[in-house]
Amino acid sequence: MTTRRMDHMTWPQFAACKDKPVIVPIGSTEQHSQHLPMGVDAMLAQHIAEDVAERIDGVVMPTLCYGYKSKPASGGGPLFPGTIDMNGVTVINLMHDVLSELVADGFTKILVMNAHFENEAFIVEAIDLVTRETNGAATIVETNWWDPLPQAVVDQVFDGLSFPGWALEHAAVTETSLMMHYEPELVHMDRVIDKGNAEAKTYVRYPVKPGDVPDYGGLASPAGSSAERGKLMADACVEAVASICEREFGPNVA
Amino acid sequence: MTTRRMDHMTWPQFAACKDKPVIVPIGSTEQHSQHLPMGVDAMLAQHIAEDVAERIDGVVMPTLCYGYKSKPASGGGPLFPGTIDMNGVTVINLMHDVLSELVADGFTKILVMNAHFENEAFIVEAIDLVTRETNGAATIVETNWWDPLPQAVVDQVFDGLSFPGWALEHAAVTETSLMMHYEPELVHMDRVIDKGNAEAKTYVRYPVKPGDVPDYGGLASPAGSSAERGKLMADACVEAVASICEREFGPNVA
Amino acid sequence: MTTRRMDHMTWPQFAACKDKPVIVPIGSTEQHSQHLPMGVDAMLAQHIAEDVAERIDGVVMPTLCYGYKSKPASGGGPLFPGTIDMNGVTVINLMHDVLSELVADGFTKILVMNAHFENEAFIVEAIDLVTRETNGAATIVETNWWDPLPQAVVDQVFDGLSFPGWALEHAAVTETSLMMHYEPELVHMDRVIDKGNAEAKTYVRYPVKPGDVPDYGGLASPAGSSAERGKLMADACVEAVASICEREFGPNVA
Amino acid sequence: MTTRRMDHMTWPQFAACKDKPVIVPIGSTEQHSQHLPMGVDAMLAQHIAEDVAERIDGVVMPTLCYGYKSKPASGGGPLFPGTIDMNGVTVINLMHDVLSELVADGFTKILVMNAHFENEAFIVEAIDLVTRETNGAATIVETNWWDPLPQAVVDQVFDGLSFPGWALEHAAVTETSLMMHYEPELVHMDRVIDKGNAEAKTYVRYPVKPGDVPDYGGLASPAGSSAERGKLMADACVEAVASICEREFGPNVA
Amino acid sequence: MTTRRMDHMTWPQFAACKDKPVIVPIGSTEQHSQHLPMGVDAMLAQHIAEDVAERIDGVVMPTLCYGYKSKPASGGGPLFPGTIDMNGVTVINLMHDVLSELVADGFTKILVMNAHFENEAFIVEAIDLVTRETNGAATIVETNWWDPLPQAVVDQVFDGLSFPGWALEHAAVTETSLMMHYEPELVHMDRVIDKGNAEAKTYVRYPVKPGDVPDYGGLASPAGSSAERGKLMADACVEAVASICEREFGPNVA
Amino acid sequence: MTTRRMDHMTWPQFAACKDKPVIVPIGSTEQHSQHLPMGVDAMLAQHIAEDVAERIDGVVMPTLCYGYKSKPASGGGPLFPGTIDMNGVTVINLMHDVLSELVADGFTKILVMNAHFENEAFIVEAIDLVTRETNGAATIVETNWWDPLPQAVVDQVFDGLSFPGWALEHAAVTETSLMMHYEPELVHMDRVIDKGNAEAKTYVRYPVKPGDVPDYGGLASPAGSSAERGKLMADACVEAVASICEREFGPNVA
Repeated sequence: MTTRRMDHMTWPQFAACKDKPVIVPIGSTEQHSQHLPMGVDAMLAQHIAEDVAERIDGVVMPTLCYGYKSKPASGGGPLFPGTIDMNGVTVINLMHDVLSELVADGFTKILVMNAHFENEAFIVEAIDLVTRETNGAATIVETNWWDPLPQAVVDQVFDGLSFPGWALEHAAVTETSLMMHYEPELVHMDRVIDKGNAEAKTYVRYPVKPGDVPDYGGLASPAGSSAERGKLMADACVEAVASICEREFGPNVA
Repeated sequence: MTTRRMDHMTWPQFAACKDKPVIVPIGSTEQHSQHLPMGVDAMLAQHIAEDVAERIDGVVMPTLCYGYKSKPASGGGPLFPGTIDMNGVTVINLMHDVLSELVADGFTKILVMNAHFENEAFIVEAIDLVTRETNGAATIVETNWWDPLPQAVVDQVFDGLSFPGWALEHAAVTETSLMMHYEPELVHMDRVIDKGNAEAKTYVRYPVKPGDVPDYGGLASPAGSSAERGKLMADACVEAVASICEREFGPNVA
Repeated sequence: MTTRRMDHMTWPQFAACKDKPVIVPIGSTEQHSQHLPMGVDAMLAQHIAEDVAERIDGVVMPTLCYGYKSKPASGGGPLFPGTIDMNGVTVINLMHDVLSELVADGFTKILVMNAHFENEAFIVEAIDLVTRETNGAATIVETNWWDPLPQAVVDQVFDGLSFPGWALEHAAVTETSLMMHYEPELVHMDRVIDKGNAEAKTYVRYPVKPGDVPDYGGLASPAGSSAERGKLMADACVEAVASICEREFGPNVA
Repeated sequence: MTTRRMDHMTWPQFAACKDKPVIVPIGSTEQHSQHLPMGVDAMLAQHIAEDVAERIDGVVMPTLCYGYKSKPASGGGPLFPGTIDMNGVTVINLMHDVLSELVADGFTKILVMNAHFENEAFIVEAIDLVTRETNGAATIVETNWWDPLPQAVVDQVFDGLSFPGWALEHAAVTETSLMMHYEPELVHMDRVIDKGNAEAKTYVRYPVKPGDVPDYGGLASPAGSSAERGKLMADACVEAVASICEREFGPNVA
Repeated sequence: MTTRRMDHMTWPQFAACKDKPVIVPIGSTEQHSQHLPMGVDAMLAQHIAEDVAERIDGVVMPTLCYGYKSKPASGGGPLFPGTIDMNGVTVINLMHDVLSELVADGFTKILVMNAHFENEAFIVEAIDLVTRETNGAATIVETNWWDPLPQAVVDQVFDGLSFPGWALEHAAVTETSLMMHYEPELVHMDRVIDKGNAEAKTYVRYPVKPGDVPDYGGLASPAGSSAERGKLMADACVEAVASICEREFGPNVA
Repeated sequence: MTTRRMDHMTWPQFAACKDKPVIVPIGSTEQHSQHLPMGVDAMLAQHIAEDVAERIDGVVMPTLCYGYKSKPASGGGPLFPGTIDMNGVTVINLMHDVLSELVADGFTKILVMNAHFENEAFIVEAIDLVTRETNGAATIVETNWWDPLPQAVVDQVFDGLSFPGWALEHAAVTETSLMMHYEPELVHMDRVIDKGNAEAKTYVRYPVKPGDVPDYGGLASPAGSSAERGKLMADACVEAVASICEREFGPNVA
């Protein structure tokens, strides 16, 4: 098996991949309650990207591990130590430069695999800027791992459980299950604190205050999480993303 | 009745309002299909802001009429003439400066009333920056007009109709009805083109291509729109926002 | 009569105007003494733009209501509540993005109608940047409403009065008269404070101190203002600007 | 006589000057017709600054030799080789950093001596930003050399000549005379081209075209220039600026 | 053994480390000749950071995998596919935000471990900005892995070999040996191309041209590289950095 | 002899030089111990640039007198009054704009002559940006004056003295000797403080503390400096740079 990781390749190996899709994973470094590590978003972005690359014969770039500011409404929140918030301009520039360089190197099929909701607007701004500057030389697709999941799969994942809505799915069933699938040794189910589900706010208020996110760091219960549910999602996500790539990058892909 | 519009006040009148909530409306200038004018988002932001101000004894700032880039997935799209897309940094800086100046003038209760989905991440970035710079001297709330609408009201608005989801609600029933309520002379129901609902994409792809948004400019049918449905939403929105203000700005408000 | 306001048009209406001149009004939000509202500059920019559009068959974009920092030497000053000062970079970017989008939409005759002196250098920087980036694809003209007024008209406006010089004409005879012409209900002549004329400074000093602008907010007497004088200026300005447009945009205009 | 030039001092000498006014000269590098060199603005800023320093016991910083974009309406214009135009942001940042460092070093009396009209708005933006960031720790004065000249002096300088207005005074009588006073060997009166006075435009138009500035580079006749007229202006300017410094920096100065 | 990787910790684990040194590794993604992968700099930064953390009881942040533009004079060069060059502002902002957040979280002992020469000026700019903004709240140390190596160790590493100077040490003996020590399976000695040493340029010339770096991508011979030499350097580097930390962070460290 | 200084030329003179090399000197304004003035770097950059211009028939632009932040490790340090530190972005933009304008004016052979080590990374960033934007329309060379000096010359300069390494050569033998050669009246050998050589640090630590640079401001002894040694270096530097220009700008040069 050949490696999928670009940073494990020599430059002639990478140069030989110009017609393949190249995947840029982006996550974040933020608190994920008491039972998950702070690298969850970066790790999920990278693992899913590697699985997608395997499925569509693609290449995976080094993961952008730091993301845009974590917001309470999405389950993070800046008041927890270890939540490392990038400014919006930083995320735009960082993604801009990575994409620009890939386009300059001749890659024309680029997939940004995002695992941190708050990143999305800034990623897309970068994609728009690069597209303008390069006259649309490359097709650039961006997706969050959860967006293309078929409803049927979500239903299956929450079989016997109740889905609190994606807004509260921070360190809850989906992320915990995916981590049990991909990085079981970093999941500490014995430390789970479960105070039921918080209520999703319909607005934003600053300054953020203690209590906007429950003090242990979670928004919804991870109870019932399992590696099987994680695998279910991972497989479905890879299949859905592969199908997006086929549609957008052309029939030879996937 | 005293004016609610800050730009209609003299400075001593405005100076006397320091303890009141001040509302910053922000919209966009973008295509709204064949039957609605390009100022829809700016007009709705301003009208709702004025109604809210009347309800909570607040003041309305001049409306920011230009917004962040319109995206196909939200029904706009850069390929239509008249869609005037600001860069992300521009929106951040513009909102930053307006908010900074209000805080410097001693206002501590600020509501940003948004009517263009794509603005939100950049507005919130500005709020975060101002909050950091001023050490949280003001409570700043941001909401989209649709977010705090109770589900019961949405059901009532779509009584006899089918709700396509907010992502497709561009120049469709909700915006058309609100415009029939607030600006009836600018609504041209005779020009409505109705090709049913587009499909919401689960990902982003650049460059944007003709056809990403149906060529007439709409994503979902405006059929069944009425001033009554518009009023229903407007009233419910005002009530919901007033209640948010009371919660966040203190009992004396609303 | 067809509308001149772009935000009142549908996109097909606007698309049909590509060969017409398009006018971008820009004002400010700043204190205008005790008898005028804070929206004076934005309102004058918009009214004159609409009159010019009527005269030359042009289109008026939504007004940029917030402008560059108000300076004491021009009669404003940051120490009055309600003066909302944008940073220079913000004004440059905002104007840049609006102009860029118009050029991208195929408009080639663009007029920026400015009503706030302090904006000008930053507007022109934006015009220069857009011109470089687009290789001069559009002819872009910028003028302040007072600059093209013939001396004879200024003399006539100040018939029986004494002209203090443009530097002191803040909330004084010209702006007050124009507001009496365009927005009479927003002028409060009963609140006029008239302490004669301040002295124009020949230099800039920071920090700005209380007293740099007289504490009521005016720099010169508005005594003698009238709607007639306002109309005189408005008509002459429209004629002068129309003539500039004819010279720069070609014989088919105006 | 002690040196006035900061760059000629050792740091202990400069450290001993903290209570003195420090002067930052700023000019430009731009075409000055056929008979004057491109460094006119920078040289005049520096010479006048040195004379002022001598008069008020001040210190002169190294001259900022590159300025904001030269505009046709002020007699320069970007189409001539040798006109080196800085972007607005560059001028703001450059002046910002110089002023910030002086304030950080404990200087509280700072004079910016400008000799290039187009610089002014960007200089003042920098002054405003530094003043905000440092809470007004220093008094910062900015003036153009021509602004504080008494009318009587201007009349005397143009005795027997006709004053075309400051807008056309580019490479004309005032600058030529000042250069004859300060740098006679760099003035080439034998190369003077004199086509009379151009007409001052009342607006700005982009793109700039050949002919916006007469092709030899001047806007008004330098005929009649003399070192005597130059000295008259220089002396009056120094006196006027010294008097401004006394007013703003306190009685011990000048 | 407890983990040293911050992204493997939960937030309460990280919160408990506030008094410990925290290490931020930064590398690059660039061509490393035919026998080394493109992630060399990022991997070395991370491995050495982890070894240092183990030695001084510190914590390792996620590695910044993308760095400043690779320059021919340092052995990289932008003309090779896979060299992903960030703009200077991007590197400054990225490092700025990471450091700011660590300081905001209360960490006061921060070490930036750099493995890509070209990063250094931009890292230090970020450190300077954060130090100013936070009034020096944290002690921030930056070092390249090669700088603190004692000369005796360099001599030992090159025992029997000839040291070409650090400027040419790109994909040569030091990096190859370190990779053989840390990531042996990613080193392909069978693909080594050895054309002897290039000559170090004493200046910079743009545009970069093919041939500025030999076409296979190396600047000096990796012949003689071994895991033993790698370990020698790694151990000496860890010891030297630990000693720097002890000196700068206080006696309790290391 | 014709002048080499561009600011002493009229624009037609400069326009006639388009095929010649144009040299942009950049220095700094920073403390140089007790016996040298703060303008050392700017003066050396300019003098050497003028000598090189004489040698290769080139033109010298006005010197950029302010440079990037002075660092203790290079002998300067921000804690001394008179060290005027520009931010990195300021230096990048300033150099960018000067180079852009030269390329726009048609110059294709540009040499940046640097005399302040800390500037280099930011200068090169500007060169890279301009090269990308102009598609490599000009050949741009950058060098520090010390880099191309042959080792034999360095040995000769330090004949009878001991060379402390370039990192400590701040206000020491090389700069002092060059100043004795070029600006003898600004060298105060009677004020020399000589405490031997400081130790070069192998890392960077912030905040900078008093004592990081010896309190008098020097890092190594200037004892033994002489105009002769200065001339030796100046001549060798000019010859080496002329030879670089010949190699990079083509055989007609030098």
